[in-house]
Amino acid sequence: MEGDIAKAEKEGVDIIFSPSPLEMYPDGFQSSVKIKEITRYLCGKSRSGHFEGVTTVVAKLFNIIKPHFALFGQKDFQQLAVIGRMVKDLNMDIQIIDVPTVREPDGLAMSSRNKYLNEEERKSALSLKEGIDIAVKMVQDGEINSQVIISALKKLILSYSFTSIEYINICDPLTLEDTDIIKEKNLLAMAVKVGDTRLIDNCLLRAGDRDK
Amino acid sequence: MEGDIAKAEKEGVDIIFSPSPLEMYPDGFQSSVKIKEITRYLCGKSRSGHFEGVTTVVAKLFNIIKPHFALFGQKDFQQLAVIGRMVKDLNMDIQIIDVPTVREPDGLAMSSRNKYLNEEERKSALSLKEGIDIAVKMVQDGEINSQVIISALKKLILSYSFTSIEYINICDPLTLEDTDIIKEKNLLAMAVKVGDTRLIDNCLLRAGDRDK
Repeated sequence: MEGDIAKAEKEGVDIIFSPSPLEMYPDGFQSSVKIKEITRYLCGKSRSGHFEGVTTVVAKLFNIIKPHFALFGQKDFQQLAVIGRMVKDLNMDIQIIDVPTVREPDGLAMSSRNKYLNEEERKSALSLKEGIDIAVKMVQDGEINSQVIISALKKLILSYSFTSIEYINICDPLTLEDTDIIKEKNLLAMAVKVGDTRLIDNCLLRAGDRDK
Repeated sequence: MEGDIAKAEKEGVDIIFSPSPLEMYPDGFQSSVKIKEITRYLCGKSRSGHFEGVTTVVAKLFNIIKPHFALFGQKDFQQLAVIGRMVKDLNMDIQIIDVPTVREPDGLAMSSRNKYLNEEERKSALSLKEGIDIAVKMVQDGEINSQVIISALKKLILSYSFTSIEYINICDPLTLEDTDIIKEKNLLAMAVKVGDTRLIDNCLLRAGDRDK
């Protein structure tokens, strides 16, 4: 928290709102906001109830702060999609702005979790971005079969030490349902454990990219 | 709808917001607001999913209209409690105002459903208010055992023609959980079918009333 406050101050932040769990969930609290379909896939598959907690607390924060806009990172693409769906479905008057993933110089997507990686794991963590680059290249070279790409990525990522794959999916970026054939715009999303640390990364794949 | 518009105009209403189902639930809609505990009792017991639909649409209407206050009738006490819980739990900046039940001269609680009652059923519909009056009298006379009161009411209401009881409960007005002994403030709530028409009514019982 202290580190985050220091960073926020450096960026010119005027106010930090950081309520306690008891303030947010007092005795008798029993309400929830749930997005039913797009929470079933990707991270939602293994993390039961996770997105219900996210949408409930974000709905509360929106009602307390009444912001004109709110920013969410593209790295957690599903979270962004779920929040976007909530805002649209429940008519919340808030503009959701998606922030592109920021990467370390070697390509690793920045995350508060990266600090848990030891030196060897840090090297293996690069397999996610390497997989993304290879997938983009395969699509550019004409591959449109999702399973062919996913198989190649699994092989690549598992060739690194300490890696285990939770999921690698190619899906529709709106419904998050798997797509067998890459068409206009598809999401490649993955969750990989490196040692004990769960990392996620994603990118958009476009079949049209091969014409560039 | 025409009748409602005429009534609203007569009362000086400037704007009626009446969206179509498709405007409210467009293709892809998949979000819901759920109040988990107090929706389990009373009407929620037999009407599965009913309150989830109510809270979802009311949350949407609140976000669209952004009212300073909203009025709900005490006749549907549970709906009032559920909306109040949602507003509190999700930090909605809206004041909920509860409107006392309005009754016909003979005591029947006003409801859009009363028009479905035929002449004979209309007479039997008075059993709800008669039950309430008797319960209040019993508590005034010193009765504090909920089951004794409920049994008396069941007997009374079933002595009328065309009546069947869905529930008669005495419960905590905040949690809606049954209370065996009447203490400070308790809710007496009932749902009774008269012919094919489901009627509800309720009142607050106070053990202290017997001192008056």
